[in-house]
Amino acid sequence: MQNFRMSCLADALRDAVGSGNVLTAPGELERYARDATAGFAQVPAAVVFPADAVQVAAVLRVCRTWRAPVVPRGGGTSLSGGAVPVPGAVVLGLEKLNRILEIEAQNLTMLVEPGVITARIDEAAAKQGLFYPPDPGSIKTSTIGGNVASNAGGLRGIKYGVTRDYVLALEVVLPDGEIAWLGSKCRKDVAGYSLRDLFVGSEGTLGVITKILLKLLPRPKARAAVLAGFATMEDAAAAASAIIAARMLPCTLEFLDQKTLRAVEAEARIGLPVTAGALLLMETDGHPAAVAEEAAQMAQIARDHRALEVREAKNAGEADQLAEARRLAYPALAKLRPSAILEDVTVPRSELAAMVRFIEKTTQRHGVECAMFGHAGDGNFHPTYLTDERDVTAMIGVRAASREIAEEALRRGGTVSGEHGIGLSKKAYLPLQRDAASFALLKQIKRAIDPENLLNPGKIFD
Amino acid sequence: MQNFRMSCLADALRDAVGSGNVLTAPGELERYARDATAGFAQVPAAVVFPADAVQVAAVLRVCRTWRAPVVPRGGGTSLSGGAVPVPGAVVLGLEKLNRILEIEAQNLTMLVEPGVITARIDEAAAKQGLFYPPDPGSIKTSTIGGNVASNAGGLRGIKYGVTRDYVLALEVVLPDGEIAWLGSKCRKDVAGYSLRDLFVGSEGTLGVITKILLKLLPRPKARAAVLAGFATMEDAAAAASAIIAARMLPCTLEFLDQKTLRAVEAEARIGLPVTAGALLLMETDGHPAAVAEEAAQMAQIARDHRALEVREAKNAGEADQLAEARRLAYPALAKLRPSAILEDVTVPRSELAAMVRFIEKTTQRHGVECAMFGHAGDGNFHPTYLTDERDVTAMIGVRAASREIAEEALRRGGTVSGEHGIGLSKKAYLPLQRDAASFALLKQIKRAIDPENLLNPGKIFD
Repeated sequence: MQNFRMSCLADALRDAVGSGNVLTAPGELERYARDATAGFAQVPAAVVFPADAVQVAAVLRVCRTWRAPVVPRGGGTSLSGGAVPVPGAVVLGLEKLNRILEIEAQNLTMLVEPGVITARIDEAAAKQGLFYPPDPGSIKTSTIGGNVASNAGGLRGIKYGVTRDYVLALEVVLPDGEIAWLGSKCRKDVAGYSLRDLFVGSEGTLGVITKILLKLLPRPKARAAVLAGFATMEDAAAAASAIIAARMLPCTLEFLDQKTLRAVEAEARIGLPVTAGALLLMETDGHPAAVAEEAAQMAQIARDHRALEVREAKNAGEADQLAEARRLAYPALAKLRPSAILEDVTVPRSELAAMVRFIEKTTQRHGVECAMFGHAGDGNFHPTYLTDERDVTAMIGVRAASREIAEEALRRGGTVSGEHGIGLSKKAYLPLQRDAASFALLKQIKRAIDPENLLNPGKIFD
Repeated sequence: MQNFRMSCLADALRDAVGSGNVLTAPGELERYARDATAGFAQVPAAVVFPADAVQVAAVLRVCRTWRAPVVPRGGGTSLSGGAVPVPGAVVLGLEKLNRILEIEAQNLTMLVEPGVITARIDEAAAKQGLFYPPDPGSIKTSTIGGNVASNAGGLRGIKYGVTRDYVLALEVVLPDGEIAWLGSKCRKDVAGYSLRDLFVGSEGTLGVITKILLKLLPRPKARAAVLAGFATMEDAAAAASAIIAARMLPCTLEFLDQKTLRAVEAEARIGLPVTAGALLLMETDGHPAAVAEEAAQMAQIARDHRALEVREAKNAGEADQLAEARRLAYPALAKLRPSAILEDVTVPRSELAAMVRFIEKTTQRHGVECAMFGHAGDGNFHPTYLTDERDVTAMIGVRAASREIAEEALRRGGTVSGEHGIGLSKKAYLPLQRDAASFALLKQIKRAIDPENLLNPGKIFD
């Protein structure tokens, strides 16, 4: 019976998107069982590759008829299990919707399909002297649709905000197969509830994004980077705070702990100060005069806070090299042990140093090796457990540490996820953060828009 | 029977907030019949002034029991009828919730109650070298709660965005009297749907805002203003476009047509070029070197676009004077005729000049006197009908022109409301803008959160 249903479902999917765009063979399905999150895997029933919104709508109607859950998938780079299938799911691969449709330089907008690789967006903007600031760590492999669905952050959050801040409008296919436009080309638009903002960060649970109208900025004319090594995390955090207190807003303000720093240096070999206990990477962009002044000021603040070494990038190439090295943090750590499990804890920036200390103690107590790096500027950072997900005892320690860390972040006014999303991996923590009324509201919204729980079921909440 | 019900309701309200905080005498209720929108008035059944969220919750429970609609009210400055009562309504005056509760300079946040006058927010921020950019025209009389409920815009939208961009978290009382926190102190927070963003701009229809956590910026170090008079609106619009094409992002880029310009000069007497057909007011802020350079560049662009006269403000005082003059546009126009009815049409900025011409022709055809001013930088502007709302024939012309203008704005990719909200006055136009699926979603959301239609019923949609 189950096989008969599956065969009917597969036929209907082939009708919807063409038989060349449906995978059902076990060997082909395997690579869609996971995203970039350790510890979660489930082979789907089928994978489909629609070519446009109309085909997406057709797929949703088929899946509704056959009661098959739909799991939208972009680059598969989720770090919260957001793209991991549930049993019997149809994975909706959006890689064919990969066109940049229009750039309107005068309106500072870009219209794209969801399957465009994130890095391509800013590359296309740059050709016209424009700028798309959000830069999640996975920028070279993630897709813009996934970025919007998870409201991806990135290194430039402190100055430029997150993906949400650059979404003007969305085309979405709703669970009933209807296509809706949410938002407009206007910077100011107050015509009814901002449903656009409800769908940004909804992790594929409310609708499938099929077009995105992005807001662009003029490209900053200059950029500079300053690197400073400190003996302790406290010194680095104090320097970061002093930069904010001096009323500067750097475009990035990143930190690496010693373990991360050493892993990165082993990969990049650019002479990072590996004896430092913590490293700060500070970037500023804007008008050349402002940039020169702020870089000098940040270097001085670092020295005033007992930096062991301060290095100013001499040119854009050197600044790029430092930013690239920072991007190596996760891949470099991932090479050290069989599994690197990335947390995404976030606290108000004033709580950063204390939170780092708490994490050090907590992971030690549970016998978990942990490296840390992240965004000192916005309090969002990534304790990374270096472990082996096949080792049951080790994973018990990881889970215990993870929960204590989430609880501590909440005590300090933080959030259990700053930029990776709730997905599967943070689902147990969400009720700790949301009060009962707001948690109930989440479910009411989901029920109102997706009453049959068709879209990405089991993500965010049960 | 109706009187008995009213008397029970009034008693229950007195129990909820104290008898000194309930108005029911007809003479006292009259001033709560209107907001700043011409053409809409309805005396409420009662007005209450709760002191905190707990009292707001008590009022909502009472009103739910007695099935009395609740209309939240801040400064009463709505220009879309957002605060106009429905028959039998209890107006929830939030003026007692008027405290700035906390400024955390290190986290760049400010926690406030909804009844704080908008202008006080930036004044308080300025004392710590910080900046709250949103500056709706009514900044000196509107409240921050009303700004959030209507996602108010303002003059600085082009560079700094709108109120939504500065709301980190909200405390809201839901229709069932439950109190929910939406959002957190973290710049990056992806823990579930962004209900905060759903409530921003929901015009009091989903919940009552009782606390607001605002995001602040470092205060720009310098500011400059340039004024340019042009023979035609086309020249002014071309200059505005050239500024964007030169990859500048001025903090304001305002235009006034001749009629508005003359009305403002008659009030302000600061020597505005009253023979010009259109005036551009351009402001830039940021690093002193960048500001000086951009001001010179904007002045040159204005000259290159046949400006009749270009004036650079020599100092901050003169820049303030120009900005203040611009703020006089609406009050100055309002003095010319018995009624000044403000539109809030918005188009992508590339469509601005063509839209202005269309409005001139359309209002002439309907025999309606119309002055125009607004935000050239973001395409949001305010055709202002100078008329008499008691003159039935004149008002037929106004309504016909208004509808044609809304339809034309939509044809050009615009919105029927850029910053004033839908309220009562734009309700008929909303279905023209929203496709059927997205319009249906609005109602689904309202039903899910406020199934008894208790809060501000009849606003946005029926």
